[in-house]
Amino acid sequence: MTKGNVLIVHGGAPTAVINASLYGAVTEAKCHPEVDKIYGAIGGSGGVLREEFIDLKHVEEDKLKLLLHTPASAIGTSRDHLEPEDYKAMAQILKRYNIKYVLFNGGNGSMDACGKLYKACDDYGVQVNVVGIPKTIDNDISVTDHAPGFGSAARYIAATVSEVSQDVKSLPIHVCIIEAMGRNAGWLTAASALARTKAGDGPDLIYLPEHPFDEEQFLEDVKALYEKKGGVVVVASEGLKNKQGEPIVAPVFKVGRSVYYGDVSAHLANLVIQRLGIKARSEKPGICGRASSAFQSEIDRDEAIIAGAEAAKAAFEGKTGVMVGFERLPGKEYKCKTKLIPIEEVMLHERILPDKYINERGNDVTDEFVEWCRPLIGSPLKEFISFK
Amino acid sequence: MTKGNVLIVHGGAPTAVINASLYGAVTEAKCHPEVDKIYGAIGGSGGVLREEFIDLKHVEEDKLKLLLHTPASAIGTSRDHLEPEDYKAMAQILKRYNIKYVLFNGGNGSMDACGKLYKACDDYGVQVNVVGIPKTIDNDISVTDHAPGFGSAARYIAATVSEVSQDVKSLPIHVCIIEAMGRNAGWLTAASALARTKAGDGPDLIYLPEHPFDEEQFLEDVKALYEKKGGVVVVASEGLKNKQGEPIVAPVFKVGRSVYYGDVSAHLANLVIQRLGIKARSEKPGICGRASSAFQSEIDRDEAIIAGAEAAKAAFEGKTGVMVGFERLPGKEYKCKTKLIPIEEVMLHERILPDKYINERGNDVTDEFVEWCRPLIGSPLKEFISFK
Repeated sequence: MTKGNVLIVHGGAPTAVINASLYGAVTEAKCHPEVDKIYGAIGGSGGVLREEFIDLKHVEEDKLKLLLHTPASAIGTSRDHLEPEDYKAMAQILKRYNIKYVLFNGGNGSMDACGKLYKACDDYGVQVNVVGIPKTIDNDISVTDHAPGFGSAARYIAATVSEVSQDVKSLPIHVCIIEAMGRNAGWLTAASALARTKAGDGPDLIYLPEHPFDEEQFLEDVKALYEKKGGVVVVASEGLKNKQGEPIVAPVFKVGRSVYYGDVSAHLANLVIQRLGIKARSEKPGICGRASSAFQSEIDRDEAIIAGAEAAKAAFEGKTGVMVGFERLPGKEYKCKTKLIPIEEVMLHERILPDKYINERGNDVTDEFVEWCRPLIGSPLKEFISFK
Repeated sequence: MTKGNVLIVHGGAPTAVINASLYGAVTEAKCHPEVDKIYGAIGGSGGVLREEFIDLKHVEEDKLKLLLHTPASAIGTSRDHLEPEDYKAMAQILKRYNIKYVLFNGGNGSMDACGKLYKACDDYGVQVNVVGIPKTIDNDISVTDHAPGFGSAARYIAATVSEVSQDVKSLPIHVCIIEAMGRNAGWLTAASALARTKAGDGPDLIYLPEHPFDEEQFLEDVKALYEKKGGVVVVASEGLKNKQGEPIVAPVFKVGRSVYYGDVSAHLANLVIQRLGIKARSEKPGICGRASSAFQSEIDRDEAIIAGAEAAKAAFEGKTGVMVGFERLPGKEYKCKTKLIPIEEVMLHERILPDKYINERGNDVTDEFVEWCRPLIGSPLKEFISFK
């Protein structure tokens, strides 16, 4: 491999294990004496442009190990919108800092940036290997079986819905609507089904952004369940849309290019109270879910470390313009191998939940989804007891 | 002690450790051969009136131990409104079932019921010892230093705010408003201060229901912090009120006696966007907090077990019309002893956060509060790392 420096950049929203990938990448890079500095960009791609770098090579191992359970991004991240000239500037900065290897960790938007940086380096004749590390709680990155970050967020929503379902079962006086993240892709909302360990366990209803939401059918389903069980637990995606493809909550207001919508969960709870006269409340853990260290899935964390390390290895081996992906091996036991995917195959391609994972009525997932998802959330959830 | 049966009743909203008190009470009762049956009322006081009892005496120990980490109420609970004739009916049911010891676990409302049942038994000449076990996430029960359930809910909000603060620090693009439970008492909102381990850590602002909320001052505080740090983390009580003592969010609608308010967190986020033009979002973990098994405080769980066991002991020793409470002993190291409090001293007396625990500007707690609260949340929170 060529002698030179490494740069790791984080993009987009953090996850519970993005720092575990950072740990994997840094640890792998430290094994190569040809690597002089292992830079982290402070604050994402903006940090690259501002030339805010920290050298992680000599951080003590016990401090570095804190990355394994630290949520969010220890080097910061950003949602900067980059223009073509920004990529040109970045390529020049890389050259100036003798950076030969760039590891770009992020979701769809960041993989787009990763691909564009790769292209820019090529265009301007800057010799840099650019490799993507996938990361998303939404699990909407294409081609890979799943992406680091999803398993932990899935474990969070499954465990949390399991706990809230215990609460609602013990005090069955209301309909409880829990909002899950994922505006276009329902993977995380769907993962709440993993809360169930026996028949009758919550969640009772799951509404996904991929299936047109029908208010009347929703009220019918809730009413029937309330009359049967008392307490009802509903998990709804923050991005539910009606038959016309419009968000079911109207925009509250707009600031510049940003549109702000009301909360789906609060909207649905209000609907239940007003239309059915049944007590309802909403819970919206939101960021608490993607930042949860307590609910890290150990499988997810281990795969995040591997993704970081494999990306570094690939870059050192001369690969560029690729992203590390996961491929599930056939067989009963869960096993995955990594693969390298050409970056243009994943750039901005959003992968939504396929039809086979959604039940016919559109108010639950299929067993096939549960089987696909189960290994990703890690060890079984805690067993609870109820005498009711 | 008199030969007879025991009845345990749960009232009001569950906590993460109410089942630990149940474990303590059942375990203590099992030590006394004079106790024939150890009934749990299925579904709270309504369960008593419906005579829905389960005998917990012969539940295998390994199943019983699941109570120690199972959130919510394993025997159910209720928010039934009881009339004088209900207490009379209860007294008669107790007599019929040869129940000589009633342990009533709950918050202010349940202690009121506990006191009224004690009075009714006395009035109708039914020989029953009635003892209260305190329980509340809101920590609003009088006379006792604190009540089981609070420590775990406090640990949840502190740990969650610590995690969310990591997220906001790493992607400082918005003001994040986290809503804490406790409509009249701000103990839980205040406990979010325990998220801080060093200067600059979130939460940045804490708004309590005891202090009149001033919108203009809030916007001023948020703006100043946003300009300084970028991301801002605010914790706000669900029950914030203005100078006139009215909720800062208008009622959305009324059904019978119930009034439904909008979410304080969403309201404040909207305010920040509309008035300051700064991106903002709201998180409302709600029930996720009181039902969290992962964030049980070990001190809280142990004290919950003790409260259950001590209540049983007191009843067996002939005490009645009392509630078990905690008294903090002087000294540097945290130590508590239990005491018995006459039930009329706690019946429906709501204890709010005293002024000494709120800072002058009303946007934070004092160090004195933090010192008081710290031992209750149990072992130190996880240490995180950031290179930013």
